[in-house]
Amino acid sequence: MRALIKTAPQPGLLFSICPDPAPGPTDAVVRVKATSLCGTDAHIYNWDPWAHSRIHPPRVIGHEMCGEVVAIGSEVTLVKIGDYVAAESHITCGQCFQCRTGQAHVCRNYRILGVDRDGSFAEYVVLPESVLWKTSPLIPPEFASLQEPLGNAVDAALAEDLTGHTVLITGCGPTGLFAAAVARTAGAATIIASDVSEYRLALAKQVGVDHVLNAKAEPPEKFAAAIREITAGEGVDASLEMSGHPAALHQVFDAVKNGGRVTLFGIPAGPITFDLANDIIFKGVRVHGITGRRLFSTWYRLAGLFKAGLNIKPVVTHTFPMSEFARGFELINSGQCGKVVLFP
Amino acid sequence: MRALIKTAPQPGLLFSICPDPAPGPTDAVVRVKATSLCGTDAHIYNWDPWAHSRIHPPRVIGHEMCGEVVAIGSEVTLVKIGDYVAAESHITCGQCFQCRTGQAHVCRNYRILGVDRDGSFAEYVVLPESVLWKTSPLIPPEFASLQEPLGNAVDAALAEDLTGHTVLITGCGPTGLFAAAVARTAGAATIIASDVSEYRLALAKQVGVDHVLNAKAEPPEKFAAAIREITAGEGVDASLEMSGHPAALHQVFDAVKNGGRVTLFGIPAGPITFDLANDIIFKGVRVHGITGRRLFSTWYRLAGLFKAGLNIKPVVTHTFPMSEFARGFELINSGQCGKVVLFP
Amino acid sequence: MRALIKTAPQPGLLFSICPDPAPGPTDAVVRVKATSLCGTDAHIYNWDPWAHSRIHPPRVIGHEMCGEVVAIGSEVTLVKIGDYVAAESHITCGQCFQCRTGQAHVCRNYRILGVDRDGSFAEYVVLPESVLWKTSPLIPPEFASLQEPLGNAVDAALAEDLTGHTVLITGCGPTGLFAAAVARTAGAATIIASDVSEYRLALAKQVGVDHVLNAKAEPPEKFAAAIREITAGEGVDASLEMSGHPAALHQVFDAVKNGGRVTLFGIPAGPITFDLANDIIFKGVRVHGITGRRLFSTWYRLAGLFKAGLNIKPVVTHTFPMSEFARGFELINSGQCGKVVLFP
Amino acid sequence: MRALIKTAPQPGLLFSICPDPAPGPTDAVVRVKATSLCGTDAHIYNWDPWAHSRIHPPRVIGHEMCGEVVAIGSEVTLVKIGDYVAAESHITCGQCFQCRTGQAHVCRNYRILGVDRDGSFAEYVVLPESVLWKTSPLIPPEFASLQEPLGNAVDAALAEDLTGHTVLITGCGPTGLFAAAVARTAGAATIIASDVSEYRLALAKQVGVDHVLNAKAEPPEKFAAAIREITAGEGVDASLEMSGHPAALHQVFDAVKNGGRVTLFGIPAGPITFDLANDIIFKGVRVHGITGRRLFSTWYRLAGLFKAGLNIKPVVTHTFPMSEFARGFELINSGQCGKVVLFP
Repeated sequence: MRALIKTAPQPGLLFSICPDPAPGPTDAVVRVKATSLCGTDAHIYNWDPWAHSRIHPPRVIGHEMCGEVVAIGSEVTLVKIGDYVAAESHITCGQCFQCRTGQAHVCRNYRILGVDRDGSFAEYVVLPESVLWKTSPLIPPEFASLQEPLGNAVDAALAEDLTGHTVLITGCGPTGLFAAAVARTAGAATIIASDVSEYRLALAKQVGVDHVLNAKAEPPEKFAAAIREITAGEGVDASLEMSGHPAALHQVFDAVKNGGRVTLFGIPAGPITFDLANDIIFKGVRVHGITGRRLFSTWYRLAGLFKAGLNIKPVVTHTFPMSEFARGFELINSGQCGKVVLFP
Repeated sequence: MRALIKTAPQPGLLFSICPDPAPGPTDAVVRVKATSLCGTDAHIYNWDPWAHSRIHPPRVIGHEMCGEVVAIGSEVTLVKIGDYVAAESHITCGQCFQCRTGQAHVCRNYRILGVDRDGSFAEYVVLPESVLWKTSPLIPPEFASLQEPLGNAVDAALAEDLTGHTVLITGCGPTGLFAAAVARTAGAATIIASDVSEYRLALAKQVGVDHVLNAKAEPPEKFAAAIREITAGEGVDASLEMSGHPAALHQVFDAVKNGGRVTLFGIPAGPITFDLANDIIFKGVRVHGITGRRLFSTWYRLAGLFKAGLNIKPVVTHTFPMSEFARGFELINSGQCGKVVLFP
Repeated sequence: MRALIKTAPQPGLLFSICPDPAPGPTDAVVRVKATSLCGTDAHIYNWDPWAHSRIHPPRVIGHEMCGEVVAIGSEVTLVKIGDYVAAESHITCGQCFQCRTGQAHVCRNYRILGVDRDGSFAEYVVLPESVLWKTSPLIPPEFASLQEPLGNAVDAALAEDLTGHTVLITGCGPTGLFAAAVARTAGAATIIASDVSEYRLALAKQVGVDHVLNAKAEPPEKFAAAIREITAGEGVDASLEMSGHPAALHQVFDAVKNGGRVTLFGIPAGPITFDLANDIIFKGVRVHGITGRRLFSTWYRLAGLFKAGLNIKPVVTHTFPMSEFARGFELINSGQCGKVVLFP
Repeated sequence: MRALIKTAPQPGLLFSICPDPAPGPTDAVVRVKATSLCGTDAHIYNWDPWAHSRIHPPRVIGHEMCGEVVAIGSEVTLVKIGDYVAAESHITCGQCFQCRTGQAHVCRNYRILGVDRDGSFAEYVVLPESVLWKTSPLIPPEFASLQEPLGNAVDAALAEDLTGHTVLITGCGPTGLFAAAVARTAGAATIIASDVSEYRLALAKQVGVDHVLNAKAEPPEKFAAAIREITAGEGVDASLEMSGHPAALHQVFDAVKNGGRVTLFGIPAGPITFDLANDIIFKGVRVHGITGRRLFSTWYRLAGLFKAGLNIKPVVTHTFPMSEFARGFELINSGQCGKVVLFP
């Protein structure tokens, strides 16, 4: 089959031929219909220090996908040939404290599709039955492939209920935009979003954000003043930090009400300095660190959100045949895109 | 001033003249802009046994209202003259366990506006500052007056988060319809509603219900089968019982998933017989008894829901000048209406 | 091996010889060290209508146990030979909505050890790896075997936090007594327990109950008055219904505070009639139907409770060699016992 | 009356005479039976920069107290003359979002007893009825006075349920010790506590801590290793940071399990640098900033904890007549004490 392979410890990927995968007794083989690019894939493509330390070539990469089951192992009962599926990218151990108590999203031993085993930038991918997610045929492949990162956004946005609440989202990369779309569908009262890119702020408007703030254009005191004005001096009920940027990390705590809640999802490039007393303690706030997706309550909820009208169309800014993967990575490196989806 | 007064222990109300109310030091006088009819008012109008035991004429009735502050007592600081306000109808004691722990909606000693003290079917009403709720001028009086019963619906619907979840609502009286509108705004995946009145089911469609079931037309086994079909055999995540009807009380438990949740809001006419083992215990469900509105978190959330696009317009089926109150009560007694709003 | 077998569709059990069990690839064989009698076993022993409809002889019964792993299948990694283990008795499907969302305790397709497959009243029992629970060697077998019913009690008692709260427990059968012991360890402020048996009320005192009420001796109005006096007129924060008795079902709602919570665990013999309006709705209470045990958060928490000093010793009133099983069932049928444990 | 007064903007306090306070219509006058020293009082006594910026002499300081009601205003109904009371030290506004939604502990406009108005280091103190807390006569004054700081500890410890859970407490000052006592009463499985003072670690042992770690003696890697060993490699379910020390702030996140929870209560002297990605995000933890006490659910719960056997006796290391206040402040400045209580 054709696949995008990291063949050597250096930048780039090779679009090449490798053997078709075969399923073990509890596996399924899925013919990939759509597979989308994630920041992690760009790290591997660019071969940054993290990729160097983690990836062992040769490796087919890619972990956001959907497709059709074309073969199943002898013990598989959850899916059958012909099913339309997506996949949870974290293959969890099933035996640690976290896995045994319904918290497999923070499994201590999980392995990642396209990182620790061959992934979905390929015509076919083999997957354990336990990570498969049957998907409604009403959801087209370019959206179905995005359920994995959408799950991050669902958990970031809905760590606590948003209905009727005011929310600030700092960072309008794809997951921030997804979180905004989720907040809109969930009945958030007012959504404020910030970024340093006018391109991304325009996308934010398209997914239903009420107020956009360009964090580069606004000096910090103006940023805070803008939020106070929008919220009539109250601050927001919920802040979602989706950028990892140090300035944004201060803004989310500054903006949130006493007794409010903050989601931390964006990964900072290094250590962050905090005024814990004023930011967290005296405000009496709750902070939720978010990683992965709840297995599988988040996936079920996402299916419900699609039924409720979740609109992610504006975020899918580019689609390419897999052979044009390099254009996709260039777009991601430029920041001038939302989500890029490849068709094998 | 003119007011609707229960002057004697018998059916009916008198539209008559009574003295203008004067505020105590912590009170405000509100000029009523709109005041809506509730089932409780119909009980008093019809003079049923409950009304007979509870109401001591002469009494100005009415407890759903909005208006403009025209006078304030010497110690009032929460509102000022000219403010546009609605009112919480439960005047709570502030000193019982419930009041001191943020649960004043289940205060053990509360008094009700228009029942235990003179109410809002009048040109003016006097209210303690503590129950006033400043309302956005963007909300027209015929909707602002409905915030009190809408608060019931918010607590019934959002006793647990509905975003992305499937919900059954049995009973499409005004509060059931309001709950459906709230569920729609909150991003419910699928909303199923039932009633015995085609008139009300038509209103349910207008507030965004996906599937309506006529509980009179469908025999019980067909009702259950319809829900199974809509939910692909899973049952609903949440059931809201808004009718008080014995058949509906069985349907909500039958329809809910194992591990799901049920709201009980509709008041049954008498004792109800339950199969606790199969309905609640073996299913591992949670049941929420709902009464009143959380002071004032529900009111804040409702303000947010209006911003999020809450659409209650179809529920306000009739408006009259106060002098035509009898037409309103006839409509309520007939069931051929949603909410009826009076203008003093 | 020797085992207690229901050999024919009639009352009684045969202590007889049957083949040693062999493990499948994901199974373990456990040499039973202790196995305890449950009400379910008595139903099967007595051959009541439920047993008749559910049990297909021949069947080795029994589902509460602990022991030592003596053989494992080729794919087993969670336990090794020599491990001291107990077992979750519900063998869940792993694929339904409930299982995939961390709610396997309400799995729609679970099978029960000793009911749907051969159980633990035997020298050896074969169990899927996934239901095994490694147990501290500090816990003696007669207690380790009781972790399954203790898990019911943990979920019944701790459906919401009990620390510093007042609690009523109606029914002092073994699970009610276990729940009282859990409440004591959890720092309940005051524990009130009721039963119709003085024998059981004496056991309640031994596990730390503060006030015992004989529900047979006290007429209903005195029962309510006693609780009001103990709680200074407030009612209890939490009620746990552990008896299934109709009178107790009314008492738990009558006793609970406005805004409080009620656990329903005891299985009524038939339909129960409720005053939903006054019992649940106007009080604004939350009701938790409890069945099974949360997999495996309840088991972890129970391990923590043992470390915190959970004292169940008074509840284990009788131990016998397995050959004397008939004495155990006689005791259960008489009600003059707490838990009866057998040693194979 | 005699009182401890900050008479001038400089270190020290004057034990002097000032006018007896008189109650307003909604106030009570309380004869102080016991009043305890807090770190805040020491800041004022030492006249550090915070005190300089906040305190306007002359001011009677002190905010932890209990006593007997000796006079009440004309509108007071919550207490009567002769009642034994303690007081919430935060006098909240009652009108902000937080106050109106049951979150008065994070009121945006609260004033503090003994800081913003005259306090309890005096023979008499005047207090608004709304902050009074009727206390059981079974609790002696030297403990009853401590309910205010105990409330901090209750909220810090029980931000999430501790029953059956493993907990690390960094910092064994009085509130840390109180939190340990609360955790013990709440049925924590294992309590680990750290401090740099052997004196305080000895007190920790006396309130029931299972394992004490001297954070000065142990290099960071040994500290982490000790926790791993105690928890069999799992980490703790809950971490309570009660010291404000930068090293401890790292330890609490390092020690907590994936999916666990962290309380932040101790106030750092300055900004703290965090590895947010590894400490909070990838671990999927929840963080609770804790300040004040929930009004009045925490006070009710504390009353329940006393009934459940809460043992704070070891923490009350010193009691003095008020005239010997200087010895008390010397002890606090030395760190060689638990709580110091004064008797007027």
